[in-house]
This record gives sequence, structure tokens and C-alpha cells, in this order.
Amino acid sequence: ADTIRIAVTPGDGIGPEVVGEAVKCLEALRAKHGLALEWTRFPWPSHAWHEDHGESWPEDALEQLQKFDAILLGALGDPGPVDDPERYLLPDSISLSPLLDMRKGFDQWVCERPARLLPGARQYLADDRARDIDMLVIRENSEGEYVSQGGRLRKGTPDEVATQMEVFTRKATDRIIRYGFEQARARAADRIKESRTRSFRTIDGRTCESQVCLVTKRNALRHWGDMYTEAFEEISREYPDVAIHHELVDAACMKFVQSPWAFDVVVASNLQGDILTDLAAVLSGGMGVAPSCNLNPTDPDMPSMFEPTHGSAPDIAGQGLADPTAMLFTTARMLEWLGRKDPNLAAAGKALFQAVAADLAENSTRQRGTQEIGAAICARLA
Amino acid sequence: ADTIRIAVTPGDGIGPEVVGEAVKCLEALRAKHGLALEWTRFPWPSHAWHEDHGESWPEDALEQLQKFDAILLGALGDPGPVDDPERYLLPDSISLSPLLDMRKGFDQWVCERPARLLPGARQYLADDRARDIDMLVIRENSEGEYVSQGGRLRKGTPDEVATQMEVFTRKATDRIIRYGFEQARARAADRIKESRTRSFRTIDGRTCESQVCLVTKRNALRHWGDMYTEAFEEISREYPDVAIHHELVDAACMKFVQSPWAFDVVVASNLQGDILTDLAAVLSGGMGVAPSCNLNPTDPDMPSMFEPTHGSAPDIAGQGLADPTAMLFTTARMLEWLGRKDPNLAAAGKALFQAVAADLAENSTRQRGTQEIGAAICARLA
Ligand SMILES: CC(C)[C@H](C(=O)O)[C@@H](O)C(=O)O
Ligand SMILES: CC(C)[C@H](C(=O)O)[C@@H](O)C(=O)O
Repeated sequence: ADTIRIAVTPGDGIGPEVVGEAVKCLEALRAKHGLALEWTRFPWPSHAWHEDHGESWPEDALEQLQKFDAILLGALGDPGPVDDPERYLLPDSISLSPLLDMRKGFDQWVCERPARLLPGARQYLADDRARDIDMLVIRENSEGEYVSQGGRLRKGTPDEVATQMEVFTRKATDRIIRYGFEQARARAADRIKESRTRSFRTIDGRTCESQVCLVTKRNALRHWGDMYTEAFEEISREYPDVAIHHELVDAACMKFVQSPWAFDVVVASNLQGDILTDLAAVLSGGMGVAPSCNLNPTDPDMPSMFEPTHGSAPDIAGQGLADPTAMLFTTARMLEWLGRKDPNLAAAGKALFQAVAADLAENSTRQRGTQEIGAAICARLA
Repeated sequence: ADTIRIAVTPGDGIGPEVVGEAVKCLEALRAKHGLALEWTRFPWPSHAWHEDHGESWPEDALEQLQKFDAILLGALGDPGPVDDPERYLLPDSISLSPLLDMRKGFDQWVCERPARLLPGARQYLADDRARDIDMLVIRENSEGEYVSQGGRLRKGTPDEVATQMEVFTRKATDRIIRYGFEQARARAADRIKESRTRSFRTIDGRTCESQVCLVTKRNALRHWGDMYTEAFEEISREYPDVAIHHELVDAACMKFVQSPWAFDVVVASNLQGDILTDLAAVLSGGMGVAPSCNLNPTDPDMPSMFEPTHGSAPDIAGQGLADPTAMLFTTARMLEWLGRKDPNLAAAGKALFQAVAADLAENSTRQRGTQEIGAAICARLA
């Protein structure tokens, strides 16, 4: 197989620290499994708060990154001096723009965030069934609430009107819903292999091994809510083996807290998916363990991008305190994804996942630094 | 004082059952406190699923209701036969329209949902600090994502485009933010009276008795996010005694689960407020206890509307199983609100709140029917 090339963008705050551990693990895996894998580092910190830079990343960043098979991102967001009252309330949008630029530029139309409460991860819910949380939240990542259309009329005056347009296409709706059903099937197959079966009821009383729950706010945001519902209904007929369900986004958030173990695959719009994935992340242990994948499953020339769900945590940056676990789970996901180009990478990804999970299960109660955790996981890989 | 008149709209499903208990409590309170209070019942069930009705409520419903000082609503939503697969995925928007019509028609621009985890209420979070949850989520209730502008182009074809416009005005932004600060002050004063002080840090290191947290998604939905932030900043200068804070909506949902006891007053947009209030409701015990107030604080000719946050629960309707606790907390809130017209009502509202809270604290582990709970609370009032 051709050598697979990864662009490593450490980003801001704790990004470089956790990415450092990811690279060490990649080195260990490459040596052990003889992987045809190489990477290039792009140390592009955000300078949103410095006067000499208006933009965060070089103008040709996307051009440079497009040549790679995947992008491994640390964290973005440089809020500047957080204790400066003048700046405290200023918008944090500038240093995050590369994230949205990559999603758009590489048409990474799926944002996939698995949420499984692994042994050792913090359990926020009182009910012990929370241990069975195992869902995959799939967020539409290319349009919807995030099209950046709108503006401010009579800006700064008492008569100001601010608008924001939401745009949803049937094409993007169909593809994200179909992707959800495919993932549900794949998860069912994996579970059956591991003898961890589950059971979901269909509306006509049958039971299925997997489920897709569509989330909308169709009782208030009717136009796209109805379109999503119609697409969901039609596509679901092609998957009689997958149970279907619908929740309104407010009820979905409530049920995520009340009975998250009842969900399997969840499909939601860009903004609602953003909210649901953060909620799913905390229910499965918090930002310290949550991976995030921005995928383009259809165009092999477009790199997919992998980042932990957490931010740049400027308050603890540079101190060796950040937990690299989420970054390493993310790296494992990236390798599994790249398995479509080279099966050895899928195996390496599984090995990394298992090493991180084992480390989490054994050491969750100990206070450890970034490098200590990374080294322990590398040692497991060797 | 003039007699205060309440329009009672039981609605659908369990609505009439829980409203029945509310009316019994109002009777007990009227007798005991000699209240100048009367009410009229409008038994308007939704008929969204019946072929003989296109609309849920009479055409002149708003005209009829406007003559009252307040509206006490049971629950809306008649999903029809829920086990009919043909109908399962159909939108549920029709039978809910009176709710949105009232909010709009009576310019109930505040939706206020207190969330306090009272003794006896179910605690979903593992951390025992959850017992200290005591926040007030204030939702902008008149515009934003709920303006119902947009549509479906090339409807039903593969080239369909669905749009939804979000419209925010500075006027509505200012008034909801100012309302938030006023509530923060009022809550601080109440707490000081009850010797339950709290402390929140300002950005310049002072401590305050109360806090307002603004929630937006300004890093992705910039236009109104920036406008909200600017309004928040300006108005906060008039309230140096109230600490300020900002969260992005995704992070806010996460922090609601991680440390909900750290919030005081939370101000959010219509849709984001919808999501946050459901989440706050479950964190403070669930739908069984959560009141909701749709208020017009500025126009005395417009009735405010009070409803439990829960829905019509068609699956248990008509069986005497529904818990009227949320309905009764809602009724208490209504009376406290009407206290601005007649102080006796505020006192009656406090008495009702205390009776419901005491009943909850003592009986939370017993299985009781709707009428049994209502009767126990009435007995406390007598
Ligand atoms: C940083 C922000 C724009 C982004 C989003 O809202 O998509 C983040 O919250 C995420 O979920 O990746
Ligand atoms: C029924 C629905 C339209 C409504 C809303 O979204 O406002 C409900 O969820 C609520 O919170 O009162």
C-alpha cells in the first residue's frame, strides 16, 4: 500500500502537549506494526489576540492540508489573556475559524462522536445503568444552522435587527440519514461478533439489534423538521432491520440524562448535534475522553479531520497537566478510519483503542501528568 | 381589590386530570385566605388528529382569553393513536399551535423556569452537591429561532431546500437581559432574607450575591451572538452588584450536568432556552415537578400563561396516574405572579408552594394516584 500521510496540527493551549503524546503513540505503533505511515507537523498557533495577525492560520492552509490523507488536530482557541476584564466578553470566534473552514473546505459532512462509558471514566449519573451507555451521535456537519448567512441591520442602535439563516438541503439530509442507518447496521454486526447484543422495538412490534433516533425540533422549526422526517421515513424503509425513533431536541436532552443507555445511533442537525454531542460526551465520562471525527466519506481526495471534543484549555496550558486520553482515543479513531486505505492501520487503531481503554480502567483514580499517561500507553503498545 | 379572573384551559391527555387538582387547591386557598379570585374553564381539547377539525382551538380563543388576568394551562398535544405506524412519524406541530399562538398573541416575552432540586425530588446526578441546584432559566420567548419564517423550495424533490430564518431584535434582547438582571437581584434579596447566601466571583475579583450567565452560540452564530454579547455587556454595567458570566450553549449543557449548582440566573434565546430549560428541569427532579411561566411583565392588559413543563402524556391519560405536582407548583407560581395585582394572592402562592414542597419531601417514595396527591396537598392547605 502507498504510504499514508497525516497532517498534524497541534493548535493552541494544551493542543501541542496532547498531540505530542499522540505522535509518540504513532511512533510506537509504526515500529511495532510496520505501518506505512508518516506525518508532518504544522505548528500554526492561533494569534487571534495578537495585533500582528488578523487571521489564525496561513492563507493557503487548506491547500497545504489537502495533500494529506487525514488531519490530526490538537485544539483550537486562543482567548488571549483570560483575566483581562476588557476582553472577557469579546467573541471567541476568530481563532476557531480554521475548524469551520476545514469542515467546509473539505466537505467533512459527517461529525461522528461515539459516546461509550468505559470502565474508569467518570460517571456523572446516579443510575448504574449509565455503565451501559453506548451511543454514536452523528451530526450533520455541512449546512443547516452553520451556513453563516445573515447579518446585522442598524448595527449597534436600539433598532438593530440581527438575522441568521438556516439552510437545509434534501441532498445533505438524505446522505446524513443514510450514513446513520449504515452505522447502525455496522454497530449491530460488531456487537453480534462480540456477543453484546441489544434489542430495540420497532413501531410494529418487532425487535431489532440496532436503532436510529432522529432528533429535530419539528414542532417549532417545521420546514426542515418536516423535510428531515420525510427523508427519515423514506430511507428507513430500506433498513427494515434497524428500528427507528424520533425525539424533539429538548426531550432528547432530557432523555440523554434520564436514560442514555436506551440510545444507539442518534442523527441530528449541525447545531442540535453540537449540543447533543457535548451532552453525550459528558455522560460518557467528560471532555477528558471524548473523540470527535469530521469525515468526508464520499470523496477520497478530501482529508477527514480528527480532534478531541475538548478545547484548548488555556488555563492549564503549558503545565504538563492536560489529560491526553481524548486525543489518543481520537488518534485511534483516525487509524481505524484510515483502515479503508490500509487494513494494517485499522488493526493499529484497535490496538491503540485497547491500550488507552486499559490504561483508563486501571489508572482512573491516580493523578498523572500528560507525559506520564502518554508513556504508560506507549509502553502498552510496544 | 378587584376580583382576579383566571382562564383554566385543561387541554389534552393528562391535562384535565392535573388541572382538576389545581382547581381543588385554588378552592381550598380561596376559602382559607378569602381570596377575590374566580376562574372559568375552557374545555378545548386538541382535535388535530380528528378529521372534523383542522385547528385545535376555536378561532376566537385568544379574544376570549384576553379578558382574563392569567391563563392556567394543563397540557397540549394530542398525538392521535400513538401505536399507529402510519402516524408515528407525522409531525406533532398541529395540536401545539395554541401554545405558540398565546405566547405570540399576548406577547409573553419571558419564559421563566425555576429549577431547584427540592427534598424528595429525584436526583439524577451522582454528585451530592446536586442537592444545591437552585437556578432560574430565563428564555427569550418572543422571537429568535421561533419567528416561523422560512419555507420549502422544490418541496419533496431531491433538490429541495428548506430554510428557517432566525430574527433577533436589540429591543427584545435588551428587555430579556435586563429582566434577567432584575431577577438576579430579587433572588439575592430573597436569599439574604432566608440566610441562604451564595457567592459568585466577578471578573475583577469581587464577589457578588448573584450571577447572570448569558448563553449564546456566538462562535458559530455570530450575528445575534455578538448583539447579545454587546447588550449584555452594556446592561451589566447598571448592575455592578451582579456577577456576569458567558457560556456557549454546548458547553452550558455540559456544565449543567457537571456542576449545575454553580448557576444562578441563566438567560438564553428561544430555542437554546427551550433546550436548557428541559435539561434544568430534569436536573431538578424531572418533568414531574417542573413549572413553566410565560410572562408579559410590561403590558397589564395581556394575560400571562402558566403551564407545567411536561406534555400531555397520552400513554397514561385518563387513568388517574399522572402526578399533579408540577401543575401545582405552576399554580403556586401563577398566584405569586398575580401578587402584583393583589398581595393576598402572593401569600396564597407561597402557602401552596410550601404545601406541595412538604408533600413531595414526605411522600416521594410512595406510589400515589393523581387525586390522592391532590387531596393530601389540599388537606395541608385547609
Ligand atoms: C468551536 C465551535 C465552532 C465548534 C462547533 O460548534 O461546531 C465546536 O463546538 C465543536 O463542536 O466542534
Ligand atoms: C411544544 C413546543 C413548541 C414548546 C417549545 O418549544 O417552546 C415546548 O417544548 C416548550 O418548551 O414549551
